[in-house]
Amino acid sequence: MELESRKIADSRTEMNELVMPNDTNALGNLMGGNLMRWMDIASAICASQHCGAYVVTVSVDHITFQEPIKLGDIVTIKACVSRTFHTSLEIFIEVFTKGILQHTARKSNQAFFTFVALDERTMKPKMIPQAIPETEAEKKLFDEAAVRREFRLVVSGKMKPSDAKFSQDFLSK
Amino acid sequence: MELESRKIADSRTEMNELVMPNDTNALGNLMGGNLMRWMDIASAICASQHCGAYVVTVSVDHITFQEPIKLGDIVTIKACVSRTFHTSLEIFIEVFTKGILQHTARKSNQAFFTFVALDERTMKPKMIPQAIPETEAEKKLFDEAAVRREFRLVVSGKMKPSDAKFSQDFLSK
Amino acid sequence: MELESRKIADSRTEMNELVMPNDTNALGNLMGGNLMRWMDIASAICASQHCGAYVVTVSVDHITFQEPIKLGDIVTIKACVSRTFHTSLEIFIEVFTKGILQHTARKSNQAFFTFVALDERTMKPKMIPQAIPETEAEKKLFDEAAVRREFRLVVSGKMKPSDAKFSQDFLSK
Amino acid sequence: MELESRKIADSRTEMNELVMPNDTNALGNLMGGNLMRWMDIASAICASQHCGAYVVTVSVDHITFQEPIKLGDIVTIKACVSRTFHTSLEIFIEVFTKGILQHTARKSNQAFFTFVALDERTMKPKMIPQAIPETEAEKKLFDEAAVRREFRLVVSGKMKPSDAKFSQDFLSK
Amino acid sequence: MELESRKIADSRTEMNELVMPNDTNALGNLMGGNLMRWMDIASAICASQHCGAYVVTVSVDHITFQEPIKLGDIVTIKACVSRTFHTSLEIFIEVFTKGILQHTARKSNQAFFTFVALDERTMKPKMIPQAIPETEAEKKLFDEAAVRREFRLVVSGKMKPSDAKFSQDFLSK
Amino acid sequence: MELESRKIADSRTEMNELVMPNDTNALGNLMGGNLMRWMDIASAICASQHCGAYVVTVSVDHITFQEPIKLGDIVTIKACVSRTFHTSLEIFIEVFTKGILQHTARKSNQAFFTFVALDERTMKPKMIPQAIPETEAEKKLFDEAAVRREFRLVVSGKMKPSDAKFSQDFLSK
Repeated sequence: MELESRKIADSRTEMNELVMPNDTNALGNLMGGNLMRWMDIASAICASQHCGAYVVTVSVDHITFQEPIKLGDIVTIKACVSRTFHTSLEIFIEVFTKGILQHTARKSNQAFFTFVALDERTMKPKMIPQAIPETEAEKKLFDEAAVRREFRLVVSGKMKPSDAKFSQDFLSK
Repeated sequence: MELESRKIADSRTEMNELVMPNDTNALGNLMGGNLMRWMDIASAICASQHCGAYVVTVSVDHITFQEPIKLGDIVTIKACVSRTFHTSLEIFIEVFTKGILQHTARKSNQAFFTFVALDERTMKPKMIPQAIPETEAEKKLFDEAAVRREFRLVVSGKMKPSDAKFSQDFLSK
Repeated sequence: MELESRKIADSRTEMNELVMPNDTNALGNLMGGNLMRWMDIASAICASQHCGAYVVTVSVDHITFQEPIKLGDIVTIKACVSRTFHTSLEIFIEVFTKGILQHTARKSNQAFFTFVALDERTMKPKMIPQAIPETEAEKKLFDEAAVRREFRLVVSGKMKPSDAKFSQDFLSK
Repeated sequence: MELESRKIADSRTEMNELVMPNDTNALGNLMGGNLMRWMDIASAICASQHCGAYVVTVSVDHITFQEPIKLGDIVTIKACVSRTFHTSLEIFIEVFTKGILQHTARKSNQAFFTFVALDERTMKPKMIPQAIPETEAEKKLFDEAAVRREFRLVVSGKMKPSDAKFSQDFLSK
Repeated sequence: MELESRKIADSRTEMNELVMPNDTNALGNLMGGNLMRWMDIASAICASQHCGAYVVTVSVDHITFQEPIKLGDIVTIKACVSRTFHTSLEIFIEVFTKGILQHTARKSNQAFFTFVALDERTMKPKMIPQAIPETEAEKKLFDEAAVRREFRLVVSGKMKPSDAKFSQDFLSK
Repeated sequence: MELESRKIADSRTEMNELVMPNDTNALGNLMGGNLMRWMDIASAICASQHCGAYVVTVSVDHITFQEPIKLGDIVTIKACVSRTFHTSLEIFIEVFTKGILQHTARKSNQAFFTFVALDERTMKPKMIPQAIPETEAEKKLFDEAAVRREFRLVVSGKMKPSDAKFSQDFLSK
C-alpha cells in the first residue's frame, strides 16, 4: 500500500516568540540553547503534521548564528519539509528577527533538523507520505538534501567517504 | 605577538545532569531542545576556558540522537576543543547516559559546536591560542575538522562547492 | 497630525506550541496559567506590530476554557486586533488544539487582551494608528468591543453603570 | 443530600512572591503572563480548599493592570471566594505590591477566576458547598457576581443579550 | 542611634504553592531543590520585611525532609524571625503539606536560613532592628538560635570548638 | 550478607554551570535557591552512584554563602561522599566560582546533604556499601560527620542533647 504524497505548503509551521530576560545569556542576547529549543518545537510540529505521526529528532545540522538576537526582539521561526526519505524527513528552519520599533525583519539563523516518524503502537519507525517540491526554492532544498544526508552519515561513521556519491558530484560542480 | 598554544586537556569540561520531568517531552524522554541547551552551556564553558575570552556560538553541526534518554537518567556531557582556527574554534561534545540502577553508561549523542572569541572591550572577534592535538583521537578530530568547516561554509553559501578542497580529498579516500 | 490607519490582516500573529510536561498541571492538562502566558506573548506581538510601538497589558477579559488541552497536543494561538481606541487597542485571541494523530483542530479557548501603546522616550501612552475592520467577522468584533470596554470600566469602578450606554443598548436587543 | 455551607474566611489564600529577573519582560517589569500564572495557582488553591475537590479553570475575567510591578518587588496575592453557583464558583483576586525599601503596599491588580469542581472518580462537575458572605465587602462582591456571570455567558455566546436580566437591572441603576 | 525593635508577628510571611509536574523529581515527588528555592524566597521576604532592607542569604541549616511531598499537593511555607544578631538574623521556616482532598495538613519540613541586611547605597552589612520574642515557642527558638549560630561558626571553621560555650552548656543539659 | 565497601573517589561528581539571567536575583547575583537546586542534583547523582540505588534527600545542613556569584560566572560544583551510615550517607559539596576572564577559581560555598538509599521495589530504606576514607581530608570529613549527624538529630528533636556524646567530646577539644 502506498501512502499519498503531500504538499510542502500544507505542513509549514510558524512560531512567533518575544525574547524575555529568561531567554538571554550574560551578554543580554538570546541564548543559543534557547533558540535551539524553539527550533526543535517548531520543526517537530511541522514534521508530525506532515507525517500524521509521532516523530523523534535524529539529527540536527548546520545551525548558523549570523548575528545576535537582542532582548525584546520578535523572533519568527518558519519550518517546512525540505525532503522526505523512507521513514525520515529533513525540516528546513529559517529564523527572522526584528526589534519592536523596526519595520523589517532580518534573517538571523537557519538550520536542518531530521526526524523519524514512529508507529504509535510499536514505537518503531514507519513509512511516511512523500513530499513534492513545487517552487524553485523547494526544489533546490530537495536536491541538496541528498548531499546533506550523505554528509551526516559520513560524519557519524555510518557511510564510507568513498560511497558519498551525491557529495562528490556536488563538490565537483 | 604570538599567543601561547594550549593543551586540549586543560579545557576539557564535564557536566552531569539528572533528567527531570521538566526536561522531558510528551513521550517521557529527554527533549532534544533541552539536551542542546545543556550542550551549549558545556561547550561555551570549554571554549571560553581555552580562549580566556567571552565566546559566542556561530554554528552547531551534526548533533546525533542515537537512542532516547529516559526520565531519571544521569546524563554526562563531555566537551573538548577539536580544532582552533584564527578567531574561532570547534568543540566536540559527547553525551553518555545511564539509568540510576545501571552500572555502565552508553554513548547517546555527539555534536560539534563552533564559537568565535570576542575581545572584551570591542566585542569584535579576537585571535585565540592554538590547540595542540596529542592523542590519536585528538589528531583524528583535528584533521577532519577542516572538512567539517568547509562543509559548513558550503551549506551556508559562503564557499563555492568547487573550492572545498579538503572535502574533495576526504570523499575520494 | 493624523496617523495612517492599518489593516487588521497586517498584524495577525500566529504562534504554535507543543504541550510539554513542563506546561501541565497535576491532572496532566495544560495549566491555565501557562496558556495565559502564551496568549500574553502572542497578543503583545500582535499589538506592538499594529502600533509600531512598545505596548503594555492593561486588561485581560473573558478567557474561556471550553475543554482541557492534553500533554503532547499542538496548540495554535491566533491573535488579531479587534478594535483600536485613542491610545489603546483590544486584541482578540483564539486558541485551537489538536492531538498529534488527529486531523482537525478544535477551538479550545478565546480571550480579549487590551494594551496601551507607549512612546519609546517618555514611556507615556501615545496615539496609535486606527484599525479598519473589513470582513463581517472583523466588523462584529469591532462593534461589540465598545460594549466589552464599557463593561471593563464599570467592573473596575471607572464608569458608573448608568453611563454604560452601548451596554444598555446591546442588552436590550 | 445538602452540602454544608462554608465561610468565605476559611478558604482565603495568600501567596507572597519576589519578582525575579526570570519573571520580567524586556522593560524590566513583571510580565503579565507570569502574574496570571501566580493568580491561577493562588485561586486554584482557594477554590479547591472551599470545595474540598479538584477544580479546573473555566473562565478568567477583568484582570486589571493599574501600574507596573518592578524587578525585586514583593508581590502579595490574596484570593477569596466571591460567589458560589451549583458546581462552579468565582474567586476574587487582589494583588498588592511594594518595593523592598517601601513601607506600604499599593494595590496593583485585581481579577475574577471561575472554577468548576470535579468529582474525583468521574471527573464530572459536582455540587459544591455554598459560601455565605458576611462582611459588607463580601456581600457587594456576591451581588455583582451575578452580573459578571451573565456577561461571561453573553460574551461567549451561551446567553442571549436580552435574557441578561441582572445586567439590565445593574446598568439601569 | 538605636533602631526601634520590632515584633516577630509583624514580618511573618506565608506562601502557598501547588506542586506542578515542573517541580517534581523522577519519582513524582517535589524535588528538594525546588522546595529550597521556595524556602529561600519566603524567608528572604520575611527577613527584608523585618529589616526594611535588602538581605542576602549567608547560611542555610538543618533542612529536614520528613516525608515526600506529592504532585498536586498544596504546600504552605511559613517563615518568621527566630533571632536577630547585630547585622544578621535567623529565619525559622516550617512547611505544611496536604493533598487537595485531605482535610488536615501535616508538617513535612523545617529549616533555618540566616541573612545579612545590606545598606542600599554601600551594599555593606548594616545594623538591623532587634526582634522581641513574646510567645513560649518564640522564646525557645530565640534561646536555641545561639547554639545553632555557634555550631555554624564551628563547622565553617570560624570558631574553635572549645570557644562554643552556648553549645557546651546546651549539650550538658 | 555484607555489601562490598567502595572508594570515595569512585563516586566523585562534578557539575559545571554558567550563571544565566534566569538564575539571578534582583541584585544580579546567583539566587541562593538556584544554587541549592544545583547542589541537590550534583549530590543526588553522587549518592546514587555510590549506593547503586535511588536516593532521597533527608537533610541539608551548613550551606555557606561566602561571597556573591555573579551573572556570567562559571560555577563548578564538586560532590563526594563524606561518610556512610547504615542506610544513609552524607555528601560534602564544595562550590568554586570564576569569571570568564579570570584565571583562578575561588571557593564560594560548601554544604552537607544527607540521603537515604531506597530499595527499588519496596521504596523502603536499604543497606548501602560503606565508604572508606583514604586521604587526610577524607578522614577529617569522616570523623566530623559523626558530630554533624548528632547535631542534626538534636536540632530536629530526635536525640536528647545529653546523649550527643561525639559533640560533647568535639566541643571540649
